[in-house]
Amino acid sequence: MLQTRIIPPAQNAHAYPLLIKSLLLSGSRYEKTREIVYRDKLRYSYATFNERVARLANVLGAAGVKAGDTVAVMDWDSHRYLECMFAIPMIGAVLHTINIRLSAEQILYTMNHAEDRFVLVNAEFVPLYQGIAAQLTTVQRTLLLTDGEAQDADLPELVGEYESLLAQASPHYDFPDFDENSVATTFYTTGTTGNPKGVYFSHRQLVLHTLALASTIGALDSIRLMGTDDVYMPITPMFHVHAWGVPYVATMLGVKQVYPGRYDPELLVELWKREKVTFSHCVPTILQMVLNARAAKGVDFAGWKIIIGGSALTRALYDTAKSRGIQLTAAYGMSETCPLISCAHLNEELRAGNEDERITYRIKAGVPVPLIEAALVDGDGRFLPADGESQGELVLRAPWLTQGYFNEPEKSEELWEGGWMHTGDVATVDGMGVIDIRDRIKDVIKTGGEWISSLTLEDLISRDPAVREVAVVGVPDPQWGERPFALIVVHEGHVLDARTVKDHLKPFVEQGHINKWAIPSQIGLVTDIPKTSVGKLDKKRIRLDIATWQAAGSEFLSTL
Amino acid sequence: MLQTRIIPPAQNAHAYPLLIKSLLLSGSRYEKTREIVYRDKLRYSYATFNERVARLANVLGAAGVKAGDTVAVMDWDSHRYLECMFAIPMIGAVLHTINIRLSAEQILYTMNHAEDRFVLVNAEFVPLYQGIAAQLTTVQRTLLLTDGEAQDADLPELVGEYESLLAQASPHYDFPDFDENSVATTFYTTGTTGNPKGVYFSHRQLVLHTLALASTIGALDSIRLMGTDDVYMPITPMFHVHAWGVPYVATMLGVKQVYPGRYDPELLVELWKREKVTFSHCVPTILQMVLNARAAKGVDFAGWKIIIGGSALTRALYDTAKSRGIQLTAAYGMSETCPLISCAHLNEELRAGNEDERITYRIKAGVPVPLIEAALVDGDGRFLPADGESQGELVLRAPWLTQGYFNEPEKSEELWEGGWMHTGDVATVDGMGVIDIRDRIKDVIKTGGEWISSLTLEDLISRDPAVREVAVVGVPDPQWGERPFALIVVHEGHVLDARTVKDHLKPFVEQGHINKWAIPSQIGLVTDIPKTSVGKLDKKRIRLDIATWQAAGSEFLSTL
Repeated sequence: MLQTRIIPPAQNAHAYPLLIKSLLLSGSRYEKTREIVYRDKLRYSYATFNERVARLANVLGAAGVKAGDTVAVMDWDSHRYLECMFAIPMIGAVLHTINIRLSAEQILYTMNHAEDRFVLVNAEFVPLYQGIAAQLTTVQRTLLLTDGEAQDADLPELVGEYESLLAQASPHYDFPDFDENSVATTFYTTGTTGNPKGVYFSHRQLVLHTLALASTIGALDSIRLMGTDDVYMPITPMFHVHAWGVPYVATMLGVKQVYPGRYDPELLVELWKREKVTFSHCVPTILQMVLNARAAKGVDFAGWKIIIGGSALTRALYDTAKSRGIQLTAAYGMSETCPLISCAHLNEELRAGNEDERITYRIKAGVPVPLIEAALVDGDGRFLPADGESQGELVLRAPWLTQGYFNEPEKSEELWEGGWMHTGDVATVDGMGVIDIRDRIKDVIKTGGEWISSLTLEDLISRDPAVREVAVVGVPDPQWGERPFALIVVHEGHVLDARTVKDHLKPFVEQGHINKWAIPSQIGLVTDIPKTSVGKLDKKRIRLDIATWQAAGSEFLSTL
Repeated sequence: MLQTRIIPPAQNAHAYPLLIKSLLLSGSRYEKTREIVYRDKLRYSYATFNERVARLANVLGAAGVKAGDTVAVMDWDSHRYLECMFAIPMIGAVLHTINIRLSAEQILYTMNHAEDRFVLVNAEFVPLYQGIAAQLTTVQRTLLLTDGEAQDADLPELVGEYESLLAQASPHYDFPDFDENSVATTFYTTGTTGNPKGVYFSHRQLVLHTLALASTIGALDSIRLMGTDDVYMPITPMFHVHAWGVPYVATMLGVKQVYPGRYDPELLVELWKREKVTFSHCVPTILQMVLNARAAKGVDFAGWKIIIGGSALTRALYDTAKSRGIQLTAAYGMSETCPLISCAHLNEELRAGNEDERITYRIKAGVPVPLIEAALVDGDGRFLPADGESQGELVLRAPWLTQGYFNEPEKSEELWEGGWMHTGDVATVDGMGVIDIRDRIKDVIKTGGEWISSLTLEDLISRDPAVREVAVVGVPDPQWGERPFALIVVHEGHVLDARTVKDHLKPFVEQGHINKWAIPSQIGLVTDIPKTSVGKLDKKRIRLDIATWQAAGSEFLSTL
């Protein structure tokens, strides 16, 4: 280590720890009249929000929660969840955001593995909770979350109902200082194999992520994606990487926030209209559902800025959204990365260029945001050039990456092999530093010695106007190793078969975008494509389904 | 300390240090074609900038600079200074930005006190340097900075000229990682008594300041003060708190930057026109000089957003600037605070109110920016309420405050008395959290048992159309303890005396803004008001001058 002049810890006594409570010192204090809205159920001001965070801290303390305890939340997106995102870490406890789309068995696993001591349960999930309660090994007490209907529920060791407990609690709490490396949040990410893995983030990491995200969406794009006057509504679950960390940014800035509960597309459109939402973020699937909602028919969504992440943003979706008035920007990240890594804003060069190229860059993964170091490595850990051609695994160094998987030393070591965090994504990086995600390492299709990106194929196939949704996976083939297979949902009133897909793809082969082996020789026509609990294409499940259908010679398969 | 769940250092192995080099990972890499401009002398792209930072690191290494060494710069604002702000700390050395407006004696003091080992000297300052060279106790080598004219100078242990050394150096440098608490920069602040005091900031502090400042100017105001498409020109010297840290933000975002060298108002206007500048920051005095420049005559400055700090922003200057098309926003900070503390953006409530109130809030010190904790204390260190009435010393806790004065343990302890950094400013804080600076503690005028704010008086007197500039100080009075004295520069073609000043102030007494004791019974009419090296009213000097004039019964004194 270099012999720099380090401020000695004794002299550094006034170094200020980076704590989540500090995010409440600016906008959320100043914008006292701005609103936080929960569906059509509740709306209150930031002045009330600040009081409620203190009330919740008092409620938790009275219930026996101590610093270091893990407190789990099972709720849809709500003002309550936002309050928990602050109050729980601010008393030194760890917030476990439970993925309520997992199976009961997986939820049980994550709760025991995370060593949850307290659980806040939405009334809707009481039956689920009752089903696993007997097998929970660490939970001591529960709290009930309702939208006002019930005050009681058959929950073991129930402390009481959230709203009535808050109403009785003091609106004052002197939040303590502690080590900024204290764990603030944890949640579980589901791989395609094995048990869910717990990632975790410290106060320091979340504060830094909040500042970098605010700088990115505030200042780095030609349009300001979110500033003080915007109205923010997440359409990415709060249990999933803290709704991408945006609620922390919105609260720090004092922006109006709208929490939609469960993601019913009709309700989302209604909330968008009524609350004049201007900024959201979501995965492609839910945006498609919103645009297809009955309530969205004929609606001009002008002024709505949306960040798309989680899955690749296709040109088709970009164009559709644009025709409806929505400005999309792609961003990239994952559970392990808190999640922000890169954002597809355009530089001066691109903005001066033509429209088509601009869109091409708006839908890529984008460039690293402040403080993110990204590189490509090959299978042996050798660094690859940023030439736009070399494909390798994207690896990262940054201040807000999970330090490992909770209680999983081997998987943690694998994640951080060589001192860089391995994303599991195959990408290229071009001379401008723009990341283009080609595929998940395990989803790359290996056919006849060539590597084909399932994402590229999905993008190209989705440009066929008949295609509403598509998933491409590799299926085993005795001659070629693997062959691409496309699972397609067709737009109403359109027809499609393996032949028309081939005809659609041929020009792309001729233009050199893909090689001819990439054309699927078999497709499946379905009404619905399996998704994971966070709305991504469930390729593991799709592969299994295809194997079953192929064995059965199912009639919705179309072969060249 | 609370027993939180802390990530153990061993598991926290991938925690990423906050280093200045990380600020070069985003915008400055992506915006390759954007320009950095030095007057009419030089312009180059960010691609070149990145190479030049590496070249400079190689030049410094070859010259013998090692991590931990202090490297001083004596230059006007330039691309070179920007390069030094990155390259010097990035190799683990400490950048000492020399206040070239100090006297030679004071400069000598600061250089020996800071233990400067290497000095980069602008050709203009060679005579000054030669005058002190023999008394410099720690300097080993010098580098010459020129605008291209000379390659050599009579400097002791001269390594060479900056541009030619850079041209010969490699454009590659592998900047190392090190402890984020390493000191990155230092500079000296002049009090009214005693020697200049050295403040210092670590890499961590500067990175955090950069992110919070970017969030503030990018997202917290109803207008985006600086975003990717703005053109930035500082009008606050780079030797003074790193030009308020904005060059770090501009570089992180990849914004076009314009460095004006010496602050000649005519040149500033020319640069503003030619480079299409949209964002600047300065003290009130220099803005007034710019507006009064010959080149500014009849110019519509529409689209120019300026942050005003250093001294109070008066209503008169706000109105003048507005009539010329300039949007002013006040901000508050000081050398000890890196400097950003608060910014006068408007919340929803104020924006819905009337124009007059909005302006009143645009010219106050504003509300704390993200991560800043501010409070008021009385003389005994007791906290005072934020009621808009109680006046106390503003004290701070934040992640980017100097940890003390270099090698001044007693003054450092005083600065941090009670665990809060003492600003030396008397302020009120209202129910919205808005800070209103009333005075420097030592400039408050104590008359007949009342405290009168010299700043308030200056603001009210400056509203008289005849007044071009004004400074108010307390002068000793046998009967009242102190009496306010106003030193005034009158606009050309106007006349003014103690009687007209009294008539102008009377309505403010009647409206309760000030009490009747606040009306100065004597004023002085001058053509120029003494300023400190950073452009602030030099009240220490003014008090001395007044004493001399009063003793001599000078004719430019006007008495009631």
